[in-house]
Amino acid sequence: MSDLVDLLREGLPEAAVVVDPDVTAAYRQDMAGFCESGAPAVLVFPDTVEQVRHVLRSATALRVPVVPQGARTGLSGGANAVDGCILLSLVRMNRILEIDPVNRIAVVEPGVVNAELSRAAGAHGLTYPPDPSSWESCTIGGNIGTASGGLCCVKYGTTSEYVLGLDVVLADGELLRTGRRTAKGVAGYDLTRLLVGSEGTLGVVVGATLALRPTPPPQLALAAEFPSTEAACAAVCAVMEAGYTPSLMELMDTVSVRAVNALAQMGLPDSTAALLLIAFDTLDPVADLAAAGEICTAHGATEVVPAADSAESELLLQARRLSLTAMDRLGTTMVDDVAVPRSALAAMISGVAEIAERFDLTIGVVAHAGDGNTHPVVVFDADDPDETARARESFDAIMALGLDLGGTITGEHGVGLLKRDWLARELGPVGLELQRRVKAAFDPLGLLNPGKVL
Amino acid sequence: MSDLVDLLREGLPEAAVVVDPDVTAAYRQDMAGFCESGAPAVLVFPDTVEQVRHVLRSATALRVPVVPQGARTGLSGGANAVDGCILLSLVRMNRILEIDPVNRIAVVEPGVVNAELSRAAGAHGLTYPPDPSSWESCTIGGNIGTASGGLCCVKYGTTSEYVLGLDVVLADGELLRTGRRTAKGVAGYDLTRLLVGSEGTLGVVVGATLALRPTPPPQLALAAEFPSTEAACAAVCAVMEAGYTPSLMELMDTVSVRAVNALAQMGLPDSTAALLLIAFDTLDPVADLAAAGEICTAHGATEVVPAADSAESELLLQARRLSLTAMDRLGTTMVDDVAVPRSALAAMISGVAEIAERFDLTIGVVAHAGDGNTHPVVVFDADDPDETARARESFDAIMALGLDLGGTITGEHGVGLLKRDWLARELGPVGLELQRRVKAAFDPLGLLNPGKVL
Ligand SMILES: Cc1cc2nc3c(=O)[nH]c(=O)nc-3n(C[C@H](O)[C@H](O)[C@H](O)COP(=O)(O)OP(=O)(O)OC[C@H]3O[C@@H](n4cnc5c(N)ncnc54)[C@H](O)[C@@H]3O)c2cc1C
Ligand SMILES: Cc1cc2nc3c(=O)[nH]c(=O)nc-3n(C[C@H](O)[C@H](O)[C@H](O)COP(=O)(O)OP(=O)(O)OC[C@H]3O[C@@H](n4cnc5c(N)ncnc54)[C@H](O)[C@@H]3O)c2cc1C
Repeated sequence: MSDLVDLLREGLPEAAVVVDPDVTAAYRQDMAGFCESGAPAVLVFPDTVEQVRHVLRSATALRVPVVPQGARTGLSGGANAVDGCILLSLVRMNRILEIDPVNRIAVVEPGVVNAELSRAAGAHGLTYPPDPSSWESCTIGGNIGTASGGLCCVKYGTTSEYVLGLDVVLADGELLRTGRRTAKGVAGYDLTRLLVGSEGTLGVVVGATLALRPTPPPQLALAAEFPSTEAACAAVCAVMEAGYTPSLMELMDTVSVRAVNALAQMGLPDSTAALLLIAFDTLDPVADLAAAGEICTAHGATEVVPAADSAESELLLQARRLSLTAMDRLGTTMVDDVAVPRSALAAMISGVAEIAERFDLTIGVVAHAGDGNTHPVVVFDADDPDETARARESFDAIMALGLDLGGTITGEHGVGLLKRDWLARELGPVGLELQRRVKAAFDPLGLLNPGKVL
Repeated sequence: MSDLVDLLREGLPEAAVVVDPDVTAAYRQDMAGFCESGAPAVLVFPDTVEQVRHVLRSATALRVPVVPQGARTGLSGGANAVDGCILLSLVRMNRILEIDPVNRIAVVEPGVVNAELSRAAGAHGLTYPPDPSSWESCTIGGNIGTASGGLCCVKYGTTSEYVLGLDVVLADGELLRTGRRTAKGVAGYDLTRLLVGSEGTLGVVVGATLALRPTPPPQLALAAEFPSTEAACAAVCAVMEAGYTPSLMELMDTVSVRAVNALAQMGLPDSTAALLLIAFDTLDPVADLAAAGEICTAHGATEVVPAADSAESELLLQARRLSLTAMDRLGTTMVDDVAVPRSALAAMISGVAEIAERFDLTIGVVAHAGDGNTHPVVVFDADDPDETARARESFDAIMALGLDLGGTITGEHGVGLLKRDWLARELGPVGLELQRRVKAAFDPLGLLNPGKVL
């Protein structure tokens, strides 16, 4: 281990190599529940590409595993330490190198915080759409690692749609450049898209060329109360089938509505079975909201409250943004991330309610409803071993339900450690074997984030 | 060879296995110039997934190369036969299996013609955006093979953005399912996107789940005449920088304008140095066109003609759609496909003019200008060996120029045979080596479309 530290110090500044176990222990985990983490050998904070290459060369020379880390807001254990690893934090490589309004691209280092890029782009009349709710803290490197989504994906897509090119340090320290600065390009296999969502298991992202879009008009939102989640989900399908594309369409069930009320006294109706938030950032959002509101009413909404302006809209959305935090107050939480075809959303949510009953647990659901992407939040008492075991089982039951409904075990949070056993069930043997071969093509020694994903 | 045919016949209907050399010879090539093709051993037309699996199992058993083919409208030799190969035509697998308006997806077989899918989606108020100019003949399988683009990509992106999941027969006959029917999903590596654009070298697409969008309002176009290509390109950049996103922004240079005039007497001004076509499919296209028109005028346009309605718009676009056919009348043509950052478009086009002069050739340029994707069309007399050699050299010079300007050797047509030598220059040694390893992970025996791409 001392060999390792010595070797690392040959190419990194003194302060960038941390061995103090109190400090390294603080970096062991991301925000996922139910995930083990090992004891790292060392924590490094490179601030140049060359330093990252040195870290990987050292790791390869000594056969030491490497775990790349962004802000560790991940919800699948993907950034968790493994025993004896180098924790490779990219947070100091946080410069926005270029914003180019003519070509509508940004070139950034991986440690740039999502919201900072959005603000910098905003100054040019541009926007970087992917907006995970953790956007004030998560990094672009982590977003690329997990192919992160967010609230606006229903209209604007996920991180995958916005990564044009990558600079990646491979396991052996070689520097790979993928993709392009051009709007289009098909020269060779699309390794850029393969790397997006690879959770640090194929290479370390040290630079990214990202597509930006013109800032849309401010969005206007409505909140609609429904007497059942089924009715709310039927409205979601009807809005989409009618050809509307909201900039946001989020659902909160009664558990999450009450939790937010308890936290923030937002005056949401405790009695509501499902609250649907719909927003438009079109040229005529008032008309679009009115139409969506009518569809909600036709599907049984008991109240439809359109915001008068974008400040009021933000207030409505605030409820959704606070929901995870609010449910954290109810106990220990475990956030799932199952996506199903939009048409199966109602079955998914009612299935989760049955699971909650079966396991005698509180499970709240918030959903990126337009995308069919549910986040069932299992609430339990971590001091109660029996309840904890039931929580774990319910989590698995939720994934099984998602697969039965033609869905996926993860819409946006990734596989990490948490869902590794489940990946095989989703992919099947042929898919799994091929994914393993792809991993081996990039990382023959298996040093990059071992035990994650596959 | 007879062993091969016997084995194929064990799993394919009699009529689906063609050995008549007159017929097989007719299937040797796609539409690319300057590309050799070999003599196929056999041509097969499976119509089920099982039959395709049988073909691949047979190929693996006897170590025979397989070349997948769609409509052979490709422009890079990607579908060209290699000696002794099985030509695997997917054109008979041409059923649209499902169009689902709630989830906005289509499930199709690979031989479905692009325009047929568009029409079928249209009946549900939906659209499949990728629209290569060959859309009335090219297949979805070929579009996926080449990650095909088209006129509307500037707003709606390319095929890569619309493929959610694939059914793929691997070299050994195993059936791989990638991706999902859900709007989002990040379970494991994104093999779907890796396969899009892989030109039949990683697997044979036998089914695809595609994203659809609501049909936008009909687009309204304008045509603007410019005294120079530089002025036209400056207008392109200015429109984008001002935050507009046209549904189409195409440029034709004087060579292509004159060629179209000669073919179709469209009354385009022969004197124009560059014709820019801009369209909007927004809610208020008249206003957007007026604004874009003003930007054109400010950048030196001598005339700006907005269409009065969508019929007139289609007439304007017809000129662009006819341009390749029109230049074909001038001699043998060779279509290049270099994309550069939008800001380098003017330099690219004037560089091509210099190349035309240097090699004493006619080279017309049409461009998906909004995407910086140029199609320089080299016109030459194939009976003149010296001119043919110069044409070949100019083609290479155009790619070199594109790379110098920070671009890519292929924006949408693919590498195929035509640009194989150039791929290494674009990717560099690290990228090339990794791409080879990915190929080997999918196709260890190298039987799938050998000699293409890598
Ligand atoms: C309150 C809250 C709300 C959230 N909301 C959303 C949401 O709406 N949508 C959503 O998608 N997610 C959401 N998340 C999850 C999380 O924020 C995202 O997954 C985010 O992309 C992680 O970024 P990070 O910088 O924290 O990465 P980390 O957690 O540090 O790492 C994530 C993964 O990426 C890898 N990685 C990190 N940096 C690199 C790099 N430079 N090169 C290679 N691999 C790297 C890691 O190894 C790990 O596997 C939320 C999390 C919280 C706590
Ligand atoms: C007049 C004209 C205009 C064109 N305009 C455009 C344009 O605007 N934009 C554009 O992008 N292209 C354009 N092209 C090029 C061409 O039409 C596209 O590349 C198209 O996608 C090819 O489809 P295809 O069915 O003809 O495929 P093919 O030419 O038969 O095959 C193309 C490649 O895909 C592979 N392939 C085919 N089917 C499968 C399958 N099922 N599984 C795996 N691999 C497969 C082949 O091996 C080959 O490598 C144009 C061509 C012409 C002739």
